[in-house]
Amino acid sequence: MNYYAKPLAKLISEFSKLPGIGGKSAQRLAFHIMSMGEKEAMSLSEAIADARKNMRYCSVCGNLTDVDPCLICSDSKRDAHVVCVVESPRDVAAIERIREYNGLYHVLHGAISPMDGIGPSDINLKQLIVRLQGSDVTEVILATNPNIEGEATAMYASRLIKPSGIKVSRIAHGIPVGGDLEYADEITLLKAVEGRREL
Amino acid sequence: MNYYAKPLAKLISEFSKLPGIGGKSAQRLAFHIMSMGEKEAMSLSEAIADARKNMRYCSVCGNLTDVDPCLICSDSKRDAHVVCVVESPRDVAAIERIREYNGLYHVLHGAISPMDGIGPSDINLKQLIVRLQGSDVTEVILATNPNIEGEATAMYASRLIKPSGIKVSRIAHGIPVGGDLEYADEITLLKAVEGRREL
Repeated sequence: MNYYAKPLAKLISEFSKLPGIGGKSAQRLAFHIMSMGEKEAMSLSEAIADARKNMRYCSVCGNLTDVDPCLICSDSKRDAHVVCVVESPRDVAAIERIREYNGLYHVLHGAISPMDGIGPSDINLKQLIVRLQGSDVTEVILATNPNIEGEATAMYASRLIKPSGIKVSRIAHGIPVGGDLEYADEITLLKAVEGRREL
Repeated sequence: MNYYAKPLAKLISEFSKLPGIGGKSAQRLAFHIMSMGEKEAMSLSEAIADARKNMRYCSVCGNLTDVDPCLICSDSKRDAHVVCVVESPRDVAAIERIREYNGLYHVLHGAISPMDGIGPSDINLKQLIVRLQGSDVTEVILATNPNIEGEATAMYASRLIKPSGIKVSRIAHGIPVGGDLEYADEITLLKAVEGRREL
């Protein structure tokens, strides 16, 4: 790549390391940075450094945060009786986006996956059990992903939590809203029928 | 977006300003930055700042460079008798990639486009004429884009240069290699027939 000046070649190479950004996109982004005002370019550069340096995991729930405990954990208006267990901070954002859930979260940072050598002790599960002991929590919603690893994790967590008498629930599987029965796979359709609700 | 901590929300917003990066991609990139090692994240941040600060336009050819004149202009091994005129620094990179062209470049930074209010004086054209005067250049290759603006720019530049006796050529239009005659548009096919070469 000696037809680019060094700082430009370096920038293209850095961009192409990002997920979903190939060589052509990296080039386009780099040339866009060249054409940006210096203020905007510095603003992007600083946002990256700033986010990487100042973001950490909440010591209570494991979510990404810049203050510890995070804004959700320290929000007195939220219902501390319900904890929603998710695999990643992205899932927290997804559930927050529905604007209906008002409880707390617990981020596992992964799911049990024997194939990948990830056991129960490799995810943030023990901390959940410790957190639930002696707490006011009355319900744990298991919102791990609806795949093999997520289901296994939900089953495992459920068995650990149930003896303490806390209600354990799992998010519903079924046909997505706007989806089409005809194109749904058999297992999803089975789950949708199994999970039917009386009207 | 109050479900993201501030530094993260800021990073997502900065990413989503880039071309071709929507809200979802910006989120994915931001979360990827969170999961990167601090060294790699800082390396990206610094590459952006560095490229924006150290890259400028070559005072001779107008290409993006970190040294002035640029590495191509100051390379004594290159043929100073030929100048290839392109619209943008990206086009320089494209032509360099064929590894066959050994002359110099001139970057116009745009094309004549009356519809957008861009006239001959708004692009780097006058500098080309000044550069050619009293130089050793014997051929100018017009490699502006094969669209209305690029063609108009090529025609205009050609009329300005020809009186000086310098040979002016235009890159060939035709069917792209690997392309299909059947799917070629009429104008491209016409240009391909017009530009036919004896074997």
